[in-house]
Amino acid sequence: MIKATPFDFPYDGRLVPANTALLVIDLQEDFLSTSGYFARKGYDPAPLRAILPTVNRLIAAARSAGLTVIHTRQGYRGDMADMTPYERWRRKRAGLEGTDVLLRSGPGFQIVADIEVAPHDIIVDKTCNSAFIYTDFELVLRARGITHLMFTGCTTDVCVHTTLREACDRNFQCLTIADACASGDRQAHEAALHMVTVEDGVFGALTESGAVLEALAWLGAKVG
Amino acid sequence: MIKATPFDFPYDGRLVPANTALLVIDLQEDFLSTSGYFARKGYDPAPLRAILPTVNRLIAAARSAGLTVIHTRQGYRGDMADMTPYERWRRKRAGLEGTDVLLRSGPGFQIVADIEVAPHDIIVDKTCNSAFIYTDFELVLRARGITHLMFTGCTTDVCVHTTLREACDRNFQCLTIADACASGDRQAHEAALHMVTVEDGVFGALTESGAVLEALAWLGAKVG
Amino acid sequence: MIKATPFDFPYDGRLVPANTALLVIDLQEDFLSTSGYFARKGYDPAPLRAILPTVNRLIAAARSAGLTVIHTRQGYRGDMADMTPYERWRRKRAGLEGTDVLLRSGPGFQIVADIEVAPHDIIVDKTCNSAFIYTDFELVLRARGITHLMFTGCTTDVCVHTTLREACDRNFQCLTIADACASGDRQAHEAALHMVTVEDGVFGALTESGAVLEALAWLGAKVG
Amino acid sequence: MIKATPFDFPYDGRLVPANTALLVIDLQEDFLSTSGYFARKGYDPAPLRAILPTVNRLIAAARSAGLTVIHTRQGYRGDMADMTPYERWRRKRAGLEGTDVLLRSGPGFQIVADIEVAPHDIIVDKTCNSAFIYTDFELVLRARGITHLMFTGCTTDVCVHTTLREACDRNFQCLTIADACASGDRQAHEAALHMVTVEDGVFGALTESGAVLEALAWLGAKVG
Repeated sequence: MIKATPFDFPYDGRLVPANTALLVIDLQEDFLSTSGYFARKGYDPAPLRAILPTVNRLIAAARSAGLTVIHTRQGYRGDMADMTPYERWRRKRAGLEGTDVLLRSGPGFQIVADIEVAPHDIIVDKTCNSAFIYTDFELVLRARGITHLMFTGCTTDVCVHTTLREACDRNFQCLTIADACASGDRQAHEAALHMVTVEDGVFGALTESGAVLEALAWLGAKVG
Repeated sequence: MIKATPFDFPYDGRLVPANTALLVIDLQEDFLSTSGYFARKGYDPAPLRAILPTVNRLIAAARSAGLTVIHTRQGYRGDMADMTPYERWRRKRAGLEGTDVLLRSGPGFQIVADIEVAPHDIIVDKTCNSAFIYTDFELVLRARGITHLMFTGCTTDVCVHTTLREACDRNFQCLTIADACASGDRQAHEAALHMVTVEDGVFGALTESGAVLEALAWLGAKVG
Repeated sequence: MIKATPFDFPYDGRLVPANTALLVIDLQEDFLSTSGYFARKGYDPAPLRAILPTVNRLIAAARSAGLTVIHTRQGYRGDMADMTPYERWRRKRAGLEGTDVLLRSGPGFQIVADIEVAPHDIIVDKTCNSAFIYTDFELVLRARGITHLMFTGCTTDVCVHTTLREACDRNFQCLTIADACASGDRQAHEAALHMVTVEDGVFGALTESGAVLEALAWLGAKVG
Repeated sequence: MIKATPFDFPYDGRLVPANTALLVIDLQEDFLSTSGYFARKGYDPAPLRAILPTVNRLIAAARSAGLTVIHTRQGYRGDMADMTPYERWRRKRAGLEGTDVLLRSGPGFQIVADIEVAPHDIIVDKTCNSAFIYTDFELVLRARGITHLMFTGCTTDVCVHTTLREACDRNFQCLTIADACASGDRQAHEAALHMVTVEDGVFGALTESGAVLEALAWLGAKVG
């Protein structure tokens, strides 16, 4: 059981490693590097880089405890087959026309080297903000019996929150780890965390990495 | 074309009534009445009631201009066949056990009498926060060639935003009408509107009802 | 465990009533009556009516054993909001224009009186051949922990098979009950049953009602 | 317009290259080679190989006429993260345990060299029989405005038909090209083609490659 607000996670106290995944959302060069999509949009990637040590501590603890680690990556197909005229217009407007920013064929699509991706981690590539739509994410989760999701990554207000909302609608048990999520927009980040708790936890529970690490250490000791 | 931020709507200037729907999300007794789900959760429904005249003005203008009007209603099946043990636990925690609050069989499921529902309006009933998942909403939109959606209703941060996010991921052109959306949580409401505009309009465009009414009056005049 | 081909059902021998549903697909007036959609299309509904006693025996046995019984009904919205121009064209071609055939507002939408629908049965209304798409069917199944599906109803080659295929793709364990399914096209019916077994059970297992009734009687005795 | 049964394709006579895709389903080594999945299951891949010249003629004609060509490939993730215990059991039962058959990491996953895949063709990788579920197939189709699909590939009764059925439920206009589809089971192949035409074209229209080539040549001449 992990201390959280407005209620502990999971609500019934049954934290089972085999049924639980740690999600690491979109910690890619395009969002974290000083020359990627996000920086070109005028955002400071510093807050995103700041969570990397915390996310790595969570990844290590999750592995020791026997959880599944799932990374997501956002990007269009290299040939832009999945891009609408509207998205091409926005892309041009952002000065990205002719670049490989946000394309799966570009270097910005890669997960930053600071994050420890293990061979048995699962990677889900997505075009949209949500990891659920137009991907095999739900197939993988259900095939493995994963029912509980812990959220980390970026950005809190866009891809983390969209995936969180869809996970809740599909009845996955969700925990957002506040200090392991980040955004380039401080107000949006803080509001996104606050939104988890409205209506007494409409999007599940909210906690800090310390509480998760403590619980995973206890689980890991049981496993080990 | 409707004046909006960070860009006008639609982006290409082609506002076609037959392809556009005005969404009126969850303006039901359970959210707006003083004895419904929302009030029992401790929220003041006053801000939700305050948008009703604005939403009605938009509905009337949308009809005159030939747009489709779509209402959504949130609620579980009367026999709770679609409710998980977790949701039953949350329901009990909220003191709703044994009531018909948020059930389709209860009076709180109805759209408030103040909203003018016409016989040819479309009503989509949903269990989740998003109108897209586990409903025929997308089927109806695509069957009718609707590609542009204007958002009104409640709550801005939960059901409006979840539906908006999924609409964007499915490549519908989206416009959020700020003063026609409401929430019981002022901070969450304002942050949800702000989030539309991050990354230069990651969830489409944001405007006020005045700009929409002006554009619809012009379209209506052309139609009429 | 139910004797079936090419392997018994379920494959691991664990038949758990709480996780199993008996599906009764589209046994509606529009398909079974002599004046409904199907008869107007030139099909003889006699083979469909012929399975009713078998389906009722299965329903009774399923209830005694504690299984969930789920009925589906196919039909467009009364105002045809979910109907495409192509479907209107086909409707006209079939001489159905101006009728309420296949509309939820018409009497043909009702489940035939011969089928015993209990108050706690679940009914899923659908527009498409598959019960999964644009409905809350999957939401209900997963909310209740239902993982095993037994198929009955009509028509074997269209709605039963489309739903069966989508169930398999979503990793539900599926059993088709041959003599509880029917079609107006004998060749298509037999071929649809045969297709279940290709590639050593690509769409799960196939059996007869006798084997199911025997297993359910045994389960029911344990429950009772 | 393409001569077809029970009605010509498309039903309204408007064949627009930009809105039309030729689907080439699963023409992979695992299905066509003498040592792949299909042959190990006891099927003769000869009928599958026999359609290759026809499919290549259709691909060439489609390109000349400006249609989009989309290939699908079926296979599990190399680490089997998307495989259920049931699928592992079936895999073992088929003697495939420890092999890379039907895995994306194996050589059998590749499209056979006989098929002419161009750099601008689109490839959709899938785990399931349907190309729609848990993939970005629908995203790509809608992003590009593709509304009309012509079906070729293997096997007629399993992956072609499941994808066809889901395409119809999503209201794509569908044409199955009989002599460009194949199966290892002759009865199932023929029945699958017959099923397209039941209920006066419940799964769209059915034709032969000759009629398609004639129409594409005419379209190509207009383009060229």
